Amino acid sequence: MSGNTIGKIFKITTFGSSHGVALGAVVDGCPAGLELSKKDIQKELDKRRPGTSKVTTSRGETDEVQVLSGIFEGKTDGTPIAAVVYNKDMDSSAYRALRGKPRPGHADYCWETKYEHYDYRGGGRASGRTTIGHVIGGAIAKKLLETLNIKVIAHVTKIGEIESEPVDLIQIEENIEKNAVRCADLKAAKEMEELILDLKEKGDSVGGAVEIIALNVPAGLGEPVFDKLDADIAKVLMGIGSVKGVEIGLGFKSSSLKGSTMNDEFQIDNNGIKTKTNNSGGILGGISDGMPIIARIAVKPTPSISKTQQTVDLEQKENTKIEIKGRHDPCICPRITSVAESSVAIIIVDHLIRSGFIGPCRL
Amino acid sequence: MSGNTIGKIFKITTFGSSHGVALGAVVDGCPAGLELSKKDIQKELDKRRPGTSKVTTSRGETDEVQVLSGIFEGKTDGTPIAAVVYNKDMDSSAYRALRGKPRPGHADYCWETKYEHYDYRGGGRASGRTTIGHVIGGAIAKKLLETLNIKVIAHVTKIGEIESEPVDLIQIEENIEKNAVRCADLKAAKEMEELILDLKEKGDSVGGAVEIIALNVPAGLGEPVFDKLDADIAKVLMGIGSVKGVEIGLGFKSSSLKGSTMNDEFQIDNNGIKTKTNNSGGILGGISDGMPIIARIAVKPTPSISKTQQTVDLEQKENTKIEIKGRHDPCICPRITSVAESSVAIIIVDHLIRSGFIGPCRL
Amino acid sequence: MSGNTIGKIFKITTFGSSHGVALGAVVDGCPAGLELSKKDIQKELDKRRPGTSKVTTSRGETDEVQVLSGIFEGKTDGTPIAAVVYNKDMDSSAYRALRGKPRPGHADYCWETKYEHYDYRGGGRASGRTTIGHVIGGAIAKKLLETLNIKVIAHVTKIGEIESEPVDLIQIEENIEKNAVRCADLKAAKEMEELILDLKEKGDSVGGAVEIIALNVPAGLGEPVFDKLDADIAKVLMGIGSVKGVEIGLGFKSSSLKGSTMNDEFQIDNNGIKTKTNNSGGILGGISDGMPIIARIAVKPTPSISKTQQTVDLEQKENTKIEIKGRHDPCICPRITSVAESSVAIIIVDHLIRSGFIGPCRL
Amino acid sequence: MSGNTIGKIFKITTFGSSHGVALGAVVDGCPAGLELSKKDIQKELDKRRPGTSKVTTSRGETDEVQVLSGIFEGKTDGTPIAAVVYNKDMDSSAYRALRGKPRPGHADYCWETKYEHYDYRGGGRASGRTTIGHVIGGAIAKKLLETLNIKVIAHVTKIGEIESEPVDLIQIEENIEKNAVRCADLKAAKEMEELILDLKEKGDSVGGAVEIIALNVPAGLGEPVFDKLDADIAKVLMGIGSVKGVEIGLGFKSSSLKGSTMNDEFQIDNNGIKTKTNNSGGILGGISDGMPIIARIAVKPTPSISKTQQTVDLEQKENTKIEIKGRHDPCICPRITSVAESSVAIIIVDHLIRSGFIGPCRL
Repeated sequence: MSGNTIGKIFKITTFGSSHGVALGAVVDGCPAGLELSKKDIQKELDKRRPGTSKVTTSRGETDEVQVLSGIFEGKTDGTPIAAVVYNKDMDSSAYRALRGKPRPGHADYCWETKYEHYDYRGGGRASGRTTIGHVIGGAIAKKLLETLNIKVIAHVTKIGEIESEPVDLIQIEENIEKNAVRCADLKAAKEMEELILDLKEKGDSVGGAVEIIALNVPAGLGEPVFDKLDADIAKVLMGIGSVKGVEIGLGFKSSSLKGSTMNDEFQIDNNGIKTKTNNSGGILGGISDGMPIIARIAVKPTPSISKTQQTVDLEQKENTKIEIKGRHDPCICPRITSVAESSVAIIIVDHLIRSGFIGPCRL
Repeated sequence: MSGNTIGKIFKITTFGSSHGVALGAVVDGCPAGLELSKKDIQKELDKRRPGTSKVTTSRGETDEVQVLSGIFEGKTDGTPIAAVVYNKDMDSSAYRALRGKPRPGHADYCWETKYEHYDYRGGGRASGRTTIGHVIGGAIAKKLLETLNIKVIAHVTKIGEIESEPVDLIQIEENIEKNAVRCADLKAAKEMEELILDLKEKGDSVGGAVEIIALNVPAGLGEPVFDKLDADIAKVLMGIGSVKGVEIGLGFKSSSLKGSTMNDEFQIDNNGIKTKTNNSGGILGGISDGMPIIARIAVKPTPSISKTQQTVDLEQKENTKIEIKGRHDPCICPRITSVAESSVAIIIVDHLIRSGFIGPCRL
Repeated sequence: MSGNTIGKIFKITTFGSSHGVALGAVVDGCPAGLELSKKDIQKELDKRRPGTSKVTTSRGETDEVQVLSGIFEGKTDGTPIAAVVYNKDMDSSAYRALRGKPRPGHADYCWETKYEHYDYRGGGRASGRTTIGHVIGGAIAKKLLETLNIKVIAHVTKIGEIESEPVDLIQIEENIEKNAVRCADLKAAKEMEELILDLKEKGDSVGGAVEIIALNVPAGLGEPVFDKLDADIAKVLMGIGSVKGVEIGLGFKSSSLKGSTMNDEFQIDNNGIKTKTNNSGGILGGISDGMPIIARIAVKPTPSISKTQQTVDLEQKENTKIEIKGRHDPCICPRITSVAESSVAIIIVDHLIRSGFIGPCRL
Repeated sequence: MSGNTIGKIFKITTFGSSHGVALGAVVDGCPAGLELSKKDIQKELDKRRPGTSKVTTSRGETDEVQVLSGIFEGKTDGTPIAAVVYNKDMDSSAYRALRGKPRPGHADYCWETKYEHYDYRGGGRASGRTTIGHVIGGAIAKKLLETLNIKVIAHVTKIGEIESEPVDLIQIEENIEKNAVRCADLKAAKEMEELILDLKEKGDSVGGAVEIIALNVPAGLGEPVFDKLDADIAKVLMGIGSVKGVEIGLGFKSSSLKGSTMNDEFQIDNNGIKTKTNNSGGILGGISDGMPIIARIAVKPTPSISKTQQTVDLEQKENTKIEIKGRHDPCICPRITSVAESSVAIIIVDHLIRSGFIGPCRL
């Protein structure tokens, strides 16, 4: 059943697969009057593009976007914005040996049970390449957020056992551009990079964690009881391939605390009402409270590894072994940052329109 | 904007508030032909009912349900099932002193910014009492799951710093009925109960964690790329009041692992294809793989504590202090289990119909 | 599959059946701050109530509404408004003879094929009584429309072969209150009433037409290309039981015209831009143009007639005959006016919020 | 707000405008396993293509479709099918004179009020060219219908005052291919063609009516009380540009009838249960009854005429006059047939999946 649309008013419908003709998205519900060019979208796609550093896959895609509709005289016109990226550097040869032998940790087997076939060429629609659609939507969302001075930043906080030390908010944005891992703690970043390269060489992969921060989100976003802001953020983040956990604010740490320690007390001064602490991560009762929104995701290690693994030959109905060749990211965390930013940006824009902070028809 | 409906085909719309006339739910999309009585719903409501043990609030509600529609000659008839619970034991007196003074950790302030008022009487619609709607929906979902032998069980795995030891699956269901905390590790359960009572006496509260297990879910549920099964589970669980984190399978632990350790290898025998391990928690690429589905939630400590807290007088626009009297659960974990079960049951039923395992019109 | 909700943002979910416990609606998405009382809803329900004149059914329902949620201190609070009407005067005895023998022109047979049963007691959910839900939603919609000075009026323009002469807009509202048929042409009204009573006596029924006018609707409502204003109006009106046709503006007459006759030319004066004529019925390209919105519906004769009719005995699988006793409206047109008004009011409110004319959270 | 998607499970999202880069659709929710090629879509697009006869516009588009996703090894794979048609023969020159002067009968003025701009180049997204998206969706829907032997046929029944005589069902499909007007009554077709050409020469246009017939639709489709089959058909048809009325079965004629004349009596024989007549047009209580579904639409005359018309200069805020040059269909009816067929096919497929006649995941 259809499940390729996210958002209730700002709606992103994505399409395309790893080794098909093209991937893309249709963004319906963007108000008219937003300055938007192909460049705005390309900029974000370039962040998630493969092949830009040693820690990512070597698949050589330029991922050039083409905008098909929705822009008139340099501005959005209120109609759906369709944008596509044609696949170029597809090499299905490495996958042929894997046909009919589902890769552990991948969706191959599940797609087979659901659709009675699966695209053995790089996971098809289950590939991380489908996040091109997320990023197209996210690029447009970010342009809308800019008009309200809202910013969404994602940075890597953990790779394997290596955790980053806390870094000042203003430093984070700057520092993540200085290293391939997109970690704000530059010392940890170096260790992380070494770990990734070491595991890559060993034919293995590694997991990690990413934090997403949304700044200047106004209080009042979120629609209880089911479409709460944190609920929608949890959905979009958990839906990104390889994500196995989502936290808001203190997250799992809050399970150890007492109310007297966890509660964020309110205080008022000339700048208005704020909480003293932000243990709740900017969301209370599913509605934003005006503090920075903080989410964290657990990212599992890339399931594509070249070590020998046991699996099943679906046709012969017998146990067998595989080694995955292809080209893969030994750690998905650095590239997932742009997808996570985009995903959260889409949800916030959807809720800004749903709550009346952005007009539904025009800016 | 409207946000009180969950599910795409099996749709639960809930209504009502803590101190209003009644709470309830309309369940649209339940196939005809399911045997269903008031008793089936009452049974589940009794599990979440307040006042049943020392560790819960003393609000004395019988929470008797009345079914208004959707059942004909003992079976669902394919039309919407509406069910209501009238509020009885409402005591707003304790809340009057809190009027205009938002409680830390609660949604009061956020509702004020969003709606320019908030129901100071026990949180209004932001109260945990609104989960009566979840449980009505969940009760009907569970009856549908029974026809496929699918079971959803939630148990408390952590209160404060106390963690339960792993317990055999078959034992879990039995053990949680033996203690007020609904923890399957009976030794830990005793310590947890003591901790809760101790903090209650001190006017404080405590957080915890709950694990939800869904057994016998067939492979093939979940609609990539946005309506993945884990994404929808994450949404519904994060949307429960007080939940600050959601994990699937190994969850945050997977962020420390290598691919060679994390991947669940496939194997085939006479019983079909299974994975050797279940690190992924029964979901790969957003689609169920036939293994038990495992989710975990982090529950923050109840924000209602009787210790003095700092807040703001919204009318006087000045800092002030409050002490919350009322009747509250010192720890929400034991009662959240039934809500979590219901929430996951609703999502699984929605996806069973979406994927064709249950017919949309009749059983 | 679920189909009991109308509206994308202002969402009405209805439930209940002709001979069940109760009927009602949940209205989700009504902004906070609207003055609303039980009386506002009762007033509209009284308009559609049966048994108020010789031309309607004699079923004696007071249709007293109870509001369960969504109102706080006399105003809507932004949470779902649930309202119910308990069935009182149910007499299923007359229907027993019809069990298993689907009535011609009714939905009985279709429900049997779809759900493998049907509620033989007055049509169950297929009964006109389910429009109580429409009217609850409509009553709240009309209160919102009042804040923008928008008015929706429905009047009977045709019963059988008798057509009403055009009446001045200001006269329509007044005149329809003066006769049981709700026809603005008082002379035609008298003839219509006589025709209905004559056919009632003969055990027959008659069809007719109803015109719905919405005044002061601002230009700019409607979301091409699928959620056009006229498309949504057509859906909600065609969905009312017994409606077999919907027209906007000149409707089917436009099929005979030339462009030079049909086009409404624009002109500007001190009051702004208006069209000289209103052949388009206030909607162009699916978007309102600021002129009165005019829709017309064709209403088929009530299928319940006491004349002998041929049908099938579903159990014996043989042809048989029935005579329908029960209590029925010999012509549904007079009572359908309130349902049609409510239905159009709901759609207009939904689009007013969708287009930003009414804020989604609060007035 | 977003409104470019139709269908609840079989979802078509369309994009693009008359003079933009491209137009297209994303079809989400098509089950896997359907044989589908570019040719299947091209065939349907060729039917609505402009420039194929004297009675249509001379815009010379080949409308060649490119399929971007959703087909794997010759079959649908369960993922979204994206298809695009690039605009080629765009000539905006004729429209420049019309800038800021909304054309009577067109959506220009309404878009201006809604979005504070409008695409003066051929109506932009309000152009009939956007129905390329409908036809892409319809082509895929028709392939699904073929697997159940369901057929949707549209034919012109009226142009201006000329009405076609009834033609045998089996003859309709054959005859409409024999004339440019797509009218099954060949004598009337000739008169219609002459009328159209005569009015074209005079710089005028003319309206008409189209009947849509769906054969072999099983009983049981439609989701009361709001998502009834006729309600959804009414929505999709009324949403096609220029449509001002929709009828099911006898439609407006039923408003003149008595119950004893209108009701379709049931009878049973060896072929099962059928109604003797089909006055209801195959739908009772919003659910299909197994008889042919019959709908009719009123199509207004093309608003683009070259006769002088009065309008307003939006910038100068004064009355002015325009003559529309461009290339237009003097009568939209012949080309609207393929759009109407596609639209109804989409709705039927959506309901077939919603009701379980087609599996949601795979054929």
